[in-house]
Amino acid sequence: MHSNRSLENFFSPKSVAIIGASEKLRFGTFVTKNILSRTDMSGYPVHINADKIMDVKAYRSVKDIPETVDLAIFIIPSEAAPNAMRDCAQKGVKHVIILSAGFSEVDMAGKRRQEEVVEIAEKNGIRVIGPNCVGVTNLSNRFTTAEIDINSLTEGNVAFIAQSGIFGTVIIDWAAANQFGLSKVITLGNKCDVDEIDMLNYLEKDDKTKVICLYLEGIKEGRGRQFIETFKRVTRKKPVLVLKSGRTAAGARAVKSHTGSLAGDDRIFDAVIKQTGATRVDSVEELLDLAKILAAQPLPKSEGVAIITNSGSLAAMTCDELEKQGIKLAQFEPQTTEKMKKVAPYWTSIKNPVDIGPAMLQVGSQVLEAVLEDKNIGCLFVISSPPGILVKPQGLGLDLVPFYQVYKRIMDKHPEKTIILSTFGDHDIVRAAMEVFDKSGIPVINSVQNAARAIANLYRYKKYLEKSNNH
Amino acid sequence: MHSNRSLENFFSPKSVAIIGASEKLRFGTFVTKNILSRTDMSGYPVHINADKIMDVKAYRSVKDIPETVDLAIFIIPSEAAPNAMRDCAQKGVKHVIILSAGFSEVDMAGKRRQEEVVEIAEKNGIRVIGPNCVGVTNLSNRFTTAEIDINSLTEGNVAFIAQSGIFGTVIIDWAAANQFGLSKVITLGNKCDVDEIDMLNYLEKDDKTKVICLYLEGIKEGRGRQFIETFKRVTRKKPVLVLKSGRTAAGARAVKSHTGSLAGDDRIFDAVIKQTGATRVDSVEELLDLAKILAAQPLPKSEGVAIITNSGSLAAMTCDELEKQGIKLAQFEPQTTEKMKKVAPYWTSIKNPVDIGPAMLQVGSQVLEAVLEDKNIGCLFVISSPPGILVKPQGLGLDLVPFYQVYKRIMDKHPEKTIILSTFGDHDIVRAAMEVFDKSGIPVINSVQNAARAIANLYRYKKYLEKSNNH
Repeated sequence: MHSNRSLENFFSPKSVAIIGASEKLRFGTFVTKNILSRTDMSGYPVHINADKIMDVKAYRSVKDIPETVDLAIFIIPSEAAPNAMRDCAQKGVKHVIILSAGFSEVDMAGKRRQEEVVEIAEKNGIRVIGPNCVGVTNLSNRFTTAEIDINSLTEGNVAFIAQSGIFGTVIIDWAAANQFGLSKVITLGNKCDVDEIDMLNYLEKDDKTKVICLYLEGIKEGRGRQFIETFKRVTRKKPVLVLKSGRTAAGARAVKSHTGSLAGDDRIFDAVIKQTGATRVDSVEELLDLAKILAAQPLPKSEGVAIITNSGSLAAMTCDELEKQGIKLAQFEPQTTEKMKKVAPYWTSIKNPVDIGPAMLQVGSQVLEAVLEDKNIGCLFVISSPPGILVKPQGLGLDLVPFYQVYKRIMDKHPEKTIILSTFGDHDIVRAAMEVFDKSGIPVINSVQNAARAIANLYRYKKYLEKSNNH
Repeated sequence: MHSNRSLENFFSPKSVAIIGASEKLRFGTFVTKNILSRTDMSGYPVHINADKIMDVKAYRSVKDIPETVDLAIFIIPSEAAPNAMRDCAQKGVKHVIILSAGFSEVDMAGKRRQEEVVEIAEKNGIRVIGPNCVGVTNLSNRFTTAEIDINSLTEGNVAFIAQSGIFGTVIIDWAAANQFGLSKVITLGNKCDVDEIDMLNYLEKDDKTKVICLYLEGIKEGRGRQFIETFKRVTRKKPVLVLKSGRTAAGARAVKSHTGSLAGDDRIFDAVIKQTGATRVDSVEELLDLAKILAAQPLPKSEGVAIITNSGSLAAMTCDELEKQGIKLAQFEPQTTEKMKKVAPYWTSIKNPVDIGPAMLQVGSQVLEAVLEDKNIGCLFVISSPPGILVKPQGLGLDLVPFYQVYKRIMDKHPEKTIILSTFGDHDIVRAAMEVFDKSGIPVINSVQNAARAIANLYRYKKYLEKSNNH
């Protein structure tokens, strides 16, 4: 088991058997519909007593399918899984995703069923994802085994590995709603075979994936050494972000009843994660914010963080969080200060953080240019939260987009610098920033605390890479 | 100074002089427009060389106004402030809001100007808000001295005291966009006279305000003792939430150049805050989430937190944060477990946290009823993040609202319990929850971590009140 045989058929199968396909509206209907409506792969519904499912010829068993089957998807009751797995073995299927629940996560009988299924799979060299999951979603060919509207999703370069199907689905829904670019989403469920280590190995070589996010409830017994080795190897190529629950006794109990995982000692896990160069985050929001930044921006080439803000309060909160995370603000070169002095009104503050208050629209671009040209600056954080009255029709009715486009063009001249923007407040203000910046590679983060933590994590990862490349 | 004379004229003046009123589009134009268009108060534009402003007769000096002036608003250059203050003194004006910047926050000359203005005000018993702020916003009469669209705001019972005008404006814009109910917003700027202690004294007696939020950059010198006494007294009546920046050296420097405040030693501040029963929060997001909960829900009457979830992962993260904050989940009474057993499918987990997964819509209401009837439960946290496919027209096209209304009716039978709901994912899913729950008193919080921290803070405040009432 755990062979290195490609997992590619999970993501880009040419032929798929849907075992337990159903026309009736229930779990699995949308999976069936999604797959049967594709023109680039053959979908074969399998059902014990139907001749047709959604107008497609149905088979009584996977064994009856005339073609080779690259991938079988189980949406049958757990009791039927062992027999279906035997049929797959006879048919020569090598990849199975078990979406159904009712295995080790529920009771001893379920645990035994899962063991039986695994035994058949192992003997026949079948790789299995699940059970108790929503399988995979691949944005490059828009193949999904999840109950989602795949067309609402934006392709990007962030891969997400989750454990439970519901959480994976919610993340996908959130990404669709927020135009967050995903490459692949994998939910592992009970991890009866394929686990996060296998998936990290796969994603390491996946050209479409630049950042790997991992929600974990525990590591499989006996996989500790491989976990560390894999993480160490993968983080040298791509950032790996880890959100783990079961940190506390209460969390661990919740995890146990959720996916049957053993959460382990959190201090040990934390120490291990640090060793491997992976980044541990504390919340879903922090995970998504950091992933967005890593997907869009380079790691800082040099020390030196600068802040340009229109809100002194938000800048002060950012400074607090940065210092808490061990990051100090840079000193500007003398010529930077000179350049800013020429344009900034006397009541602005042109030290770092540069607080130009309501002069943001008038002198923002010159200040931005001066700071980005400063050799002491490796990373720039721009806080632009102008009052809503600027853009409201009842107010000035100003279109912020052209102003922001000027900023964007200046930023584009400095692809070597890490640039992050934060905005907060009125919906239209946020929308303008999303449109100009977020959609074209300058990540927009609402929470200044999350942005500050992300900046610290970028520097930590950069230092880890430098250190591990010197060894 | 710091007399107890009412600050009511700042919020509900019958006559207002706008000193520096201008028709030209610049800072102050919307303030002028807002006030002059009111029918329930007299607005008098004052301008050195205009006869009419926005079709209203203008006066050369506040002294020329025929009526008593309850409140004067300065939007003149800082250099002109001392003379204008002298005019106000002669006119007998007792309340002045200085919106203009260019005082102690910029340079020594500005500091001297501020001192001069304060001297005149003190001698003549004039209370001053500002300078360098956007003054006040009162939702009960929709009076505002800020550059905002007052009609877009929702009236509620949360008061917000901020220091800087920009931050205050951004909070107001955010509240408008998110239908967050505010009672009053006050920005204090340089606090040359009125400070947060005066405002706490005022808000303590304000019937419209149930929760007081405070963003602080520092406390005025010599006001430490009053600060503690006032906080101690006010927190016995209303919760006071404090977000303070300048926690670290870098933050303190930023604060110094922002509003000229001295941030002080953060450990001392933290210890002081704990003593007073106020709640310190770490981010704007946490502040707004906690305020929303306190505004809508009772403090828990008893120990015992329960979680009902459709996502085991989100529940596990909540458990982690709760335990980190010292909160343990309750044990259900035996009859609660019995009731749930009758309806919940065998693969659900009916221990606390109750994880009913995809059975949420089928059995959610019965489970909710059982848990809310449990005497061991003082506070219930519901995580409802169903997949978007349920509601999407391409999916099941289900309307979640009627399901949620059933939940809501069950919750309404238990006004004695503290109930919070969290949802995350698809926009339409979030919208349904906002519509049914958030708008009618069950606060909807996106971040489970923030919700868990809020729950812990509710219990801390409750314990503080019990302890201080026993003394």
